[in-house]
Amino acid sequence: MGNIVKPRTLSGFMELLPEKQLEFEAVTAVLREIYESYGFYPLDTPVLEASEVLLAKGGGETEKQIYRFEKGDTDLAMRFDLTVPLAKYVAMNYGSLPFPFRRYQIGKVYRGERAQRGRFREFYQADIDIIGDGELSVVNEAEIPAIIYNTFTRLGLERFKIRVNNRKILSGFFEILGEKSDPAEIMRVIDKLDKIGLEKVRGELLSMGLSGKSSDDVCAFISISGSHEEIVEKLRAYENKSPIFDKGLSELETVVSNLDSFGVPRENFGIDLTIARGLDYYTGTVYETAMLDHPEIGSVCSGGRYDDLAGFYTNKKLPGVGISIGLTRLFYVLDEMKYIKGGFSPCQVLVLPMGDNLSKAIGFAGAMRDRGIKAQLYCEEKKFKAKMAYADKIKVPFTAIIGDEEAEKGMVSLKDMASGQQEMLSYDQAVERLLEAKRHESGRKIIEVGGE
Amino acid sequence: MGNIVKPRTLSGFMELLPEKQLEFEAVTAVLREIYESYGFYPLDTPVLEASEVLLAKGGGETEKQIYRFEKGDTDLAMRFDLTVPLAKYVAMNYGSLPFPFRRYQIGKVYRGERAQRGRFREFYQADIDIIGDGELSVVNEAEIPAIIYNTFTRLGLERFKIRVNNRKILSGFFEILGEKSDPAEIMRVIDKLDKIGLEKVRGELLSMGLSGKSSDDVCAFISISGSHEEIVEKLRAYENKSPIFDKGLSELETVVSNLDSFGVPRENFGIDLTIARGLDYYTGTVYETAMLDHPEIGSVCSGGRYDDLAGFYTNKKLPGVGISIGLTRLFYVLDEMKYIKGGFSPCQVLVLPMGDNLSKAIGFAGAMRDRGIKAQLYCEEKKFKAKMAYADKIKVPFTAIIGDEEAEKGMVSLKDMASGQQEMLSYDQAVERLLEAKRHESGRKIIEVGGE
Repeated sequence: MGNIVKPRTLSGFMELLPEKQLEFEAVTAVLREIYESYGFYPLDTPVLEASEVLLAKGGGETEKQIYRFEKGDTDLAMRFDLTVPLAKYVAMNYGSLPFPFRRYQIGKVYRGERAQRGRFREFYQADIDIIGDGELSVVNEAEIPAIIYNTFTRLGLERFKIRVNNRKILSGFFEILGEKSDPAEIMRVIDKLDKIGLEKVRGELLSMGLSGKSSDDVCAFISISGSHEEIVEKLRAYENKSPIFDKGLSELETVVSNLDSFGVPRENFGIDLTIARGLDYYTGTVYETAMLDHPEIGSVCSGGRYDDLAGFYTNKKLPGVGISIGLTRLFYVLDEMKYIKGGFSPCQVLVLPMGDNLSKAIGFAGAMRDRGIKAQLYCEEKKFKAKMAYADKIKVPFTAIIGDEEAEKGMVSLKDMASGQQEMLSYDQAVERLLEAKRHESGRKIIEVGGE
Repeated sequence: MGNIVKPRTLSGFMELLPEKQLEFEAVTAVLREIYESYGFYPLDTPVLEASEVLLAKGGGETEKQIYRFEKGDTDLAMRFDLTVPLAKYVAMNYGSLPFPFRRYQIGKVYRGERAQRGRFREFYQADIDIIGDGELSVVNEAEIPAIIYNTFTRLGLERFKIRVNNRKILSGFFEILGEKSDPAEIMRVIDKLDKIGLEKVRGELLSMGLSGKSSDDVCAFISISGSHEEIVEKLRAYENKSPIFDKGLSELETVVSNLDSFGVPRENFGIDLTIARGLDYYTGTVYETAMLDHPEIGSVCSGGRYDDLAGFYTNKKLPGVGISIGLTRLFYVLDEMKYIKGGFSPCQVLVLPMGDNLSKAIGFAGAMRDRGIKAQLYCEEKKFKAKMAYADKIKVPFTAIIGDEEAEKGMVSLKDMASGQQEMLSYDQAVERLLEAKRHESGRKIIEVGGE
């Protein structure tokens, strides 16, 4: 035997038990389905890249967290997001890609953060991006809220809001203000509004050197509220003073005016002039998605429009718009809140041969699979009770018993595990029953807030 | 702009262009579908593990190839297969798992091999395993060929053969032979038969110390051939001399006798007494899968029965049976041979608004998605010709044009891109046409040998 090493999984690395894994797969399946329904290509890039390539942009908070090492004489790094690999991919394959290039990627990324409850060092990101060659229609920015809305709705969430702003509106406003302070700096202060409140924002603006009037103007501006139309109307007061402001307002109007066509309900969408997103590379529309009953979670889906995806790899101008979901953390949080519905099973029917009827049982299981029903054969030599305990453990909705009587008649005893009802049926009848149950299940949402 | 770093992907790391990626996804989708149809749980384990855990088994060829490094004071390693993480997982979660525990995992593994054409340092493995708690019925070993057969058939392959042997038969035969040489050593020589031929095998056996008679007996034994029944009949001549031989023969009979029930055609299955599999941990049935027209590729799906999955992590006896497909290499090889059918598109219809009919186009695309049709909206301000060039580039089967006339009538001009035919249709008619085309596509195999 030799020494026994205690099996363990590194802290900060999510590894799920089988039933939870089925739930996680159900979530990713919804994401894939929605993203693909909008015509995004899947993309899969290596987890490992040359450090020189991955860190071309250099610096930043993340650099310290990166898993970086040498093998032979190669300096390697594990990807810490899916945006840098996308930039590399698009720059590298520029001549072979259709533009706009729409891609989604659901993949693991790595950040050696301090271990902390609910913080992960290996986690899935689910990104979509639309990349233009030189230019990209603003209609793409209007489509993003529809994708976010459909994703979360299809998962089963209802009480969420997609918050949208346009950084050109903020930049233009600062221009109109005539302030010499760095707009990016002002935006970073504004971004804290939710956390620290309007008074403290004002204080921070003053202490970074803004005049009293400017600080008041900023605070008045970011306090603008009302319906979409009212906000747009109030913003018109600033028109014709800054071309960048006017462009931002026009883009925002395009996004807002197409919401109805895109099927995004008003209660799931809001203009929020305080959203600036920390990252400097956003240049237009920016998105955040809040769970209304859980503001403490922060944004569960964020992104925006940028003008220069891959400046570190190419001189080609590649503007784009994208969003990202931190999938592992989202799943963790939803699971913590007991929002994720359990009861997933790896199959729809567990086939149990009794006595010497193995070939009949094998044939029945195969016949079910041919009809699209997931069927598992259980052939361990156990007592009936142990077989049923296994069925319960995998939460299978039906068991199919094939004993001597069933085998002779060419039938099967199908037991509904929830009701306990058992009936002897022909194979065709069993198929019908199982397909009916499957149809019933397929509309099921994965997330159910406030109930089983 | 700053310095530009040349974007590149590490050699030995597969990164596919969009259309190829769709093909790869189609292959993995088939694997998932088949594995799930047999009731296997999906599993996802971390790419990074503590080196102490991952290398518990120690030594071996692979150790040199492992990507291993330190971060902080943690010694980390990237997984080099999916079996060790499975062993860890089962040992760790023993009390929470249903047994037999059936899991599949399709994931990337890492081996820093010398870079070579068709050799990968990051590659997907697609594994299934069935793990018993203390014991596991041999029927599970009989089910495996059915899973292999269905996987490759569903992909579109026809000319392949699942070759099966049982290591107990070989071990028992060596016992009967009364040879003192290490059976594992003899098996390693036998394993070379395909490469070096019977005469050289005999030579190697002699030079490792076997007597002339023993060497002849081994060569006679591994030359046994015929139909399944004939081989089994010839093996009966050795019965009642070694309990281990008798057990192996009985297991082989169970596998063979259930092939028909499991729906595995005779031409896709063969007993091959020369298959020993290099790894010492197999203890019963072993599998290899050959592409008959391409023996040079070697086995594309291999595995077997083992008695001790996780002896390095637990004293619990965990026997199992499993197979593994080296997916990245398989895809690469099939693609090299031009066996993979192209023509995949990220969507079924490209929606093109003309003039000021954006909201109609948005609405139409949404209506298509509601009916399960992948619809992409194209809103770039380009000439008609550029729009059609984009449609061609993404190989979309249909375009839907919505201009003033269509908008006014509430209709759409649907163009079949293959035939060039264009018709003005109602939304319902368009749905019907697109669903019809989709149904037609869904039966499509991904691999087609010898044709477009």
